[in-house]
Amino acid sequence: MNVVVQNIERADQSVIDRLANCGVATVHEAQGRKGLLASYMRPIYSGACIAGSAVTILAPPCDNWMVHVAIEQIKPGDVLVLATTSPSDAGYFGDLLATSAQARGCLGLIIDAGVRDIKDLTEMQFPVWSKAIGAQGTVKETLGSVNVPVVCAGAALNAGDIIVADDDGVCVVAREEAAEVADKSEARVALEEEKRQRLAGGELGLDMYKMRERLAEKGLKYV
Amino acid sequence: MNVVVQNIERADQSVIDRLANCGVATVHEAQGRKGLLASYMRPIYSGACIAGSAVTILAPPCDNWMVHVAIEQIKPGDVLVLATTSPSDAGYFGDLLATSAQARGCLGLIIDAGVRDIKDLTEMQFPVWSKAIGAQGTVKETLGSVNVPVVCAGAALNAGDIIVADDDGVCVVAREEAAEVADKSEARVALEEEKRQRLAGGELGLDMYKMRERLAEKGLKYV
Amino acid sequence: MNVVVQNIERADQSVIDRLANCGVATVHEAQGRKGLLASYMRPIYSGACIAGSAVTILAPPCDNWMVHVAIEQIKPGDVLVLATTSPSDAGYFGDLLATSAQARGCLGLIIDAGVRDIKDLTEMQFPVWSKAIGAQGTVKETLGSVNVPVVCAGAALNAGDIIVADDDGVCVVAREEAAEVADKSEARVALEEEKRQRLAGGELGLDMYKMRERLAEKGLKYV
Amino acid sequence: MNVVVQNIERADQSVIDRLANCGVATVHEAQGRKGLLASYMRPIYSGACIAGSAVTILAPPCDNWMVHVAIEQIKPGDVLVLATTSPSDAGYFGDLLATSAQARGCLGLIIDAGVRDIKDLTEMQFPVWSKAIGAQGTVKETLGSVNVPVVCAGAALNAGDIIVADDDGVCVVAREEAAEVADKSEARVALEEEKRQRLAGGELGLDMYKMRERLAEKGLKYV
Amino acid sequence: MNVVVQNIERADQSVIDRLANCGVATVHEAQGRKGLLASYMRPIYSGACIAGSAVTILAPPCDNWMVHVAIEQIKPGDVLVLATTSPSDAGYFGDLLATSAQARGCLGLIIDAGVRDIKDLTEMQFPVWSKAIGAQGTVKETLGSVNVPVVCAGAALNAGDIIVADDDGVCVVAREEAAEVADKSEARVALEEEKRQRLAGGELGLDMYKMRERLAEKGLKYV
Amino acid sequence: MNVVVQNIERADQSVIDRLANCGVATVHEAQGRKGLLASYMRPIYSGACIAGSAVTILAPPCDNWMVHVAIEQIKPGDVLVLATTSPSDAGYFGDLLATSAQARGCLGLIIDAGVRDIKDLTEMQFPVWSKAIGAQGTVKETLGSVNVPVVCAGAALNAGDIIVADDDGVCVVAREEAAEVADKSEARVALEEEKRQRLAGGELGLDMYKMRERLAEKGLKYV
Repeated sequence: MNVVVQNIERADQSVIDRLANCGVATVHEAQGRKGLLASYMRPIYSGACIAGSAVTILAPPCDNWMVHVAIEQIKPGDVLVLATTSPSDAGYFGDLLATSAQARGCLGLIIDAGVRDIKDLTEMQFPVWSKAIGAQGTVKETLGSVNVPVVCAGAALNAGDIIVADDDGVCVVAREEAAEVADKSEARVALEEEKRQRLAGGELGLDMYKMRERLAEKGLKYV
Repeated sequence: MNVVVQNIERADQSVIDRLANCGVATVHEAQGRKGLLASYMRPIYSGACIAGSAVTILAPPCDNWMVHVAIEQIKPGDVLVLATTSPSDAGYFGDLLATSAQARGCLGLIIDAGVRDIKDLTEMQFPVWSKAIGAQGTVKETLGSVNVPVVCAGAALNAGDIIVADDDGVCVVAREEAAEVADKSEARVALEEEKRQRLAGGELGLDMYKMRERLAEKGLKYV
Repeated sequence: MNVVVQNIERADQSVIDRLANCGVATVHEAQGRKGLLASYMRPIYSGACIAGSAVTILAPPCDNWMVHVAIEQIKPGDVLVLATTSPSDAGYFGDLLATSAQARGCLGLIIDAGVRDIKDLTEMQFPVWSKAIGAQGTVKETLGSVNVPVVCAGAALNAGDIIVADDDGVCVVAREEAAEVADKSEARVALEEEKRQRLAGGELGLDMYKMRERLAEKGLKYV
Repeated sequence: MNVVVQNIERADQSVIDRLANCGVATVHEAQGRKGLLASYMRPIYSGACIAGSAVTILAPPCDNWMVHVAIEQIKPGDVLVLATTSPSDAGYFGDLLATSAQARGCLGLIIDAGVRDIKDLTEMQFPVWSKAIGAQGTVKETLGSVNVPVVCAGAALNAGDIIVADDDGVCVVAREEAAEVADKSEARVALEEEKRQRLAGGELGLDMYKMRERLAEKGLKYV
Repeated sequence: MNVVVQNIERADQSVIDRLANCGVATVHEAQGRKGLLASYMRPIYSGACIAGSAVTILAPPCDNWMVHVAIEQIKPGDVLVLATTSPSDAGYFGDLLATSAQARGCLGLIIDAGVRDIKDLTEMQFPVWSKAIGAQGTVKETLGSVNVPVVCAGAALNAGDIIVADDDGVCVVAREEAAEVADKSEARVALEEEKRQRLAGGELGLDMYKMRERLAEKGLKYV
Repeated sequence: MNVVVQNIERADQSVIDRLANCGVATVHEAQGRKGLLASYMRPIYSGACIAGSAVTILAPPCDNWMVHVAIEQIKPGDVLVLATTSPSDAGYFGDLLATSAQARGCLGLIIDAGVRDIKDLTEMQFPVWSKAIGAQGTVKETLGSVNVPVVCAGAALNAGDIIVADDDGVCVVAREEAAEVADKSEARVALEEEKRQRLAGGELGLDMYKMRERLAEKGLKYV
């Protein structure tokens, strides 16, 4: 029942890099407004923007044993994603585990639980998106699983899916759809750049998007 | 039923500027401890302090169409205030809308819902006080209203009322009371500066405010 | 019933300093994973790390009178700890009180309620860990007590106990146990430094902690 | 600044009774989906359904003095509505106040704070919709106001507005709109009764509301 | 992108009935402590205990159009499960929809959003487990999907999976595992009945489960 | 470090019975408005009112092993009080444990975590006040302690202290103060009975408590 899936498939690195450049809000829109994790998942420091393949951890409450197991499965460019089998705010992850994960090439952690050693992680520039910050320790008593499908912060995902995370939150892209979503995301970015120029010049969205007629049809009254 | 009120009255700019200089905590005290929005309204970055006339938006849940309509009503120095008709954490506002609002002279946004593109908004120095941060997108399907009275984060306000916002939160001052509140706020600031000097020098509040006798009367025992 | 306990016992300053150097997560672990305050207690700015003897305040809701009383009891190196008799998010503490407390040598404030004047407190480098940020004012009408035992953010503590606080949260160490906890904390720090070197070099926790056998015994399957 | 408004206007009793018969969900729809209080306002027991004119109380946190003042202003058929100037879960109201209010003809209480003596209130059949249940006591030290406009649980209302409350929550109807809303509510009830018969007979909403064509136009695919 | 999957596979009715008899806590344990929905999902009235095949609805926020579409897909003994694409507390479901669903043989509703007409639903004995109770209405503007995989209250599930719900909450059993889980659940029930007799007779769990030795080994001290 | 304290002192049964008759709100007032547990502690069914000596349990998160240990320490009339070392909503307690506890004379459970088998516990009339209801199971892996001082739902208490619990919540009375609090509680009950008669007869609290003069002094204006 407790398994470690060792050889997961990953998307092309070039596709992952393109998703990282687009950011969470754009990727989320480009794939049809799905895949967002709950908005309580917040970064421990501002400004990080990453994308990588998910190495998933399904952990018992207050037990971080499986994180050690998962770190062995990391390939450079991966992102750890930890879900729990019962809600927990305990601090599963701190600077020692970050040191080990970073040494394996891990880009960051998404954790539906707590994290600690915030100051050290910030200095190391190891970004974490978490439900809580807290020093409460954990144990190493009960097995979980690695690289099984999980529900993390309300979103279902599989190992090898692509995690995109920045100051806006965290979004997951299914591995099979990654290339298509990257195409659509880049198209949005190009389009938005043009719009930005026009809006910065003072043109109104009402005119640029030709909204006035439809607003009038729906019955909006100016008084 | 869905209206855009076009010509709202605004307070004198000089009064608004005086309120901005005093900050939220002082203004709130000066007007008799009223007008604060709920404390869950937090700034997306630290250090901003603004005051401006409210251009109000009453929006349906997960629908940001009315923001476009409201931007046309902005005059330089205004602040957008968005309330929803049903609770929503969706990301109604991002960098494109901010570009457009900023081009019209808007100073910032108060939103009882979610905001996204946090990194861009921070770089643009367009401050937002919001209930949530989240990339979840919105649609443009249903009408709302602009410049009608709203209840935003638990506080009732009218278009043209003055919004003061800083790291302590958000406070609203009724337009009719703005000059009087500015007077009282500045008086408090002057008084506090004098107190600060004395307290920094080691004088105790117990002595400065002559509290010892009243504490004893109420029955406080030193043991 | 309302008392101010004047001469509280404090731990040795050298012991307190050693705890400050170790930080919350380490101290919490070293004393057997107890003493943490609730994780909703967050610092108003990042990077502060303090330890000091608790001067406790038990305050009525929305009434900060007792803070003035407590400030007189502060000795250099102390930390104020405020608990309320009923939940309150009001802003009990701002820049004037911080000026006064800092003039007495106070290192910071732990408050299970609200704080305001965030920008000023940040500039003064007076750190506060609080449940809320909010400008809502308080009154000076009702007595409370100073230096009595309190329950603050879910943790029971006595005046003179040592408060350790950093970006990870807040932890309390009983005065009687402080020296022993400092010893154990420093031992952990030394041990962790060695582990960090090995993990940074690429050694796996699975090998360093010799976990593989026990994982297999428990039934973990690699697939 | 602290006032008691003594002679408030009330809607016709017959209109109020008609609103009571329609219930919260219907009245809310009939007046254009506005006027709901936050959904955290829950009844202390199931099955009550009331409507009455609001006698409003604006109370300081943890101070129920103004409830005594407000009870004198009650006329038979009124409903007490208590808002606070700062959030509080304290138990402002219990069986003694309910006895007094009921003796004056009060139908119930809407309170954005706590209530206690739940068992007694249930036996007296005095319904309360509250944010919290809790025994924490209050004091009688600070003035508030009676029959001023308040924001209660996120909704703005005036004294004399009609409160409708049942197991679904609480809704406020502006006094001036009460007759019109009663007409529209009764029209909805009549219409719903007919629909209920047809749905109970097995007819599908898809057919009854002729939704199939519009669903196909929007692009819904059956697979 | 918006689809209605029409012919879903369902488990044997006899298996479903066996799961209903065992209840949520037992089924959850029997399948290895997985499949629970978040504990905020509460029944609108006490005492209901149901099991049925999930007809899933993925709905936009504040839009209940897809419920009408889903009702056509119901077969006797099914349970509706509604997840939203963005958090919403709106009242998606009331007595008319319940009348229609009940006419098709639906046993109840699991909804990660709000429900209304609580009094009517209770009288009809149509049980609902929901995140919220609220009268806030919804619209019929935007498509969603029916019988696609959803994440509801933190749990991932597919159409045709078995929902078990009672006063303890809601649990989902994968269709493929239903028979095995029913076997294990009934075995637990039989075992528990025997234990209950012994415990009721005064035997201690410490003795019945032979815990004393292991407690001593772990170091528990009696003082 | 993990201990079971076996012979705790208890208050006189007659004193405990007198406290049970007075109820939580009265006892809380009588002892100076202290000792309440957080208001999130709610009864699983309405109408129970108990008082008994606390047998305390300090349990690890999601581990109910210590409950078995504690049951052996129960004497007739005791109440179990479970606090956790880290927040947990797991279902620590169900019908089997209740059967065992009830066989030992236990009156009920106060648990700052989750409980399950709600329907069975209601039928057995074994009352529980809990933070959550949930079927999520627990393990029996890690030691805790029994009859040590704990902080439960924000209140500090010792084994042998008296727990009073009813529909209003939970209050703790220190064992040493129990007789005095019982005296004061009964005095309040007598006084309240007389007041109730007068208020039911229509006398106003304003007159009965002679409040009018003090209200005028404080500046209340009737308009």
